[in-house]
Amino acid sequence: MELISSLQNQKIKDLVTLETKSRERRMRGIFAVEGRREIERALASGFQAVGIFCTNESKVPQNTDCPVYEVTDKVYTKIAYREGTEGIIAVMKEKNTAPEDLSLTANSLILVLESVEKPGNLGAVLRTADAAGVDAVFICDPLTDLYNPNLIRASLGAIFSVPTVCCTSQEAFSVIKSAGIRILTAQLQDSELYYDTDMTCGTALVFGTEDKGLTDFWRERSDAKIRIPMAGMMDSLNVSVSAAILCFEAVRQRNIISE
Amino acid sequence: MELISSLQNQKIKDLVTLETKSRERRMRGIFAVEGRREIERALASGFQAVGIFCTNESKVPQNTDCPVYEVTDKVYTKIAYREGTEGIIAVMKEKNTAPEDLSLTANSLILVLESVEKPGNLGAVLRTADAAGVDAVFICDPLTDLYNPNLIRASLGAIFSVPTVCCTSQEAFSVIKSAGIRILTAQLQDSELYYDTDMTCGTALVFGTEDKGLTDFWRERSDAKIRIPMAGMMDSLNVSVSAAILCFEAVRQRNIISE
Repeated sequence: MELISSLQNQKIKDLVTLETKSRERRMRGIFAVEGRREIERALASGFQAVGIFCTNESKVPQNTDCPVYEVTDKVYTKIAYREGTEGIIAVMKEKNTAPEDLSLTANSLILVLESVEKPGNLGAVLRTADAAGVDAVFICDPLTDLYNPNLIRASLGAIFSVPTVCCTSQEAFSVIKSAGIRILTAQLQDSELYYDTDMTCGTALVFGTEDKGLTDFWRERSDAKIRIPMAGMMDSLNVSVSAAILCFEAVRQRNIISE
Repeated sequence: MELISSLQNQKIKDLVTLETKSRERRMRGIFAVEGRREIERALASGFQAVGIFCTNESKVPQNTDCPVYEVTDKVYTKIAYREGTEGIIAVMKEKNTAPEDLSLTANSLILVLESVEKPGNLGAVLRTADAAGVDAVFICDPLTDLYNPNLIRASLGAIFSVPTVCCTSQEAFSVIKSAGIRILTAQLQDSELYYDTDMTCGTALVFGTEDKGLTDFWRERSDAKIRIPMAGMMDSLNVSVSAAILCFEAVRQRNIISE
């Protein structure tokens, strides 16, 4: 195993660039994952490691056959993007899932998010989607890339387990409609209460951005407009909170039906 | 109106201390709020302003009778704790609500959070609590103070509208029990699915910390142990997400019943 002790090492410089520049990730088709739990979740979900940097060989998961580099603590501090010493970062190959690669059925539970701006918010939604057993998440016209370090961190690795597709709204709509899935749009105006809406059949829950709401594209293609009742001073909820409330209502309705 | 243009002005130094030191907030019984929306929500909820710092007098809400100081942009940059130029910060008096000041009934919906560590998480929970019409939030043995700037920001001002009490677990338990409210603890072990649990009568939803879970104190005093089913790789949800799912299940059950 090669030991890297210099901050000027080209591999270290390349890794830092990969962590900080989305353009670099897109061009090279690889990205960085920090933390043993996240790396194990990526490997378990079929992602392939192409290099591992660690402060101690014992941190490396078994059955990884890529090059492993031991780095000094000083070098690790340079490449770490999280607080707390995880001591391991893997470089992995992206999986670019196309909308037509998903195997959607007429019973699928789907999330559609319009141009989410904050990687942390998107990561939180994915963590919930994993827990709710969501079949796919569509990110339409995204403003962040899926392999942003803050997104991976906030998702606790759910970005690897939940089938996630970046595409245009039109592409997402076509695939969802072909599968015979109903489109429910979250909006305050002209809408019914979410728990009065049937989610036991194939359901796509569509969310706009927190400040601008849904675009006309989705409003016009909605099969049902639904809202979460707001009792207090607030006029909106965080998108990760709204998504959790609606996804788990689908879980509830489906489990009650199957009992 | 006094114009403050010097970073060395004692009022400016005091304000920065107030924003950064929880000890200072506790000692003086005052805190800072940035942003017109948050300040208006605090005033509407009966909080009293003792001073306002702004870049322009037009930003000051009407009917405030405290001293107003105009500050230069350079001074504002020094006292601002948020990005984006809000241009107004108010210093307000704390309200220290004691457990026995709350008017709980046998139908109240209550949240109890054990020692939440991150102000941002607590703020997100309060935002949801406002939307769900929660009657009171108990923060037991808190590790952050209620008037932390990050908490106020994440709550979007819900900290002012939702009755919130910091106290010991024993104090919270006594008040909840006296009101005849059932205690539901969120825990994975030995628990029933949350949507199989009646929340139409008085309900206190109790959450432990994300890493350690509930303490024995609450486990032993639980009337029903409930869990959110987890379909994927994750073994937990963020506390603000869990709280949202359970609070809105109570909202759903109560509204369906009242229809």
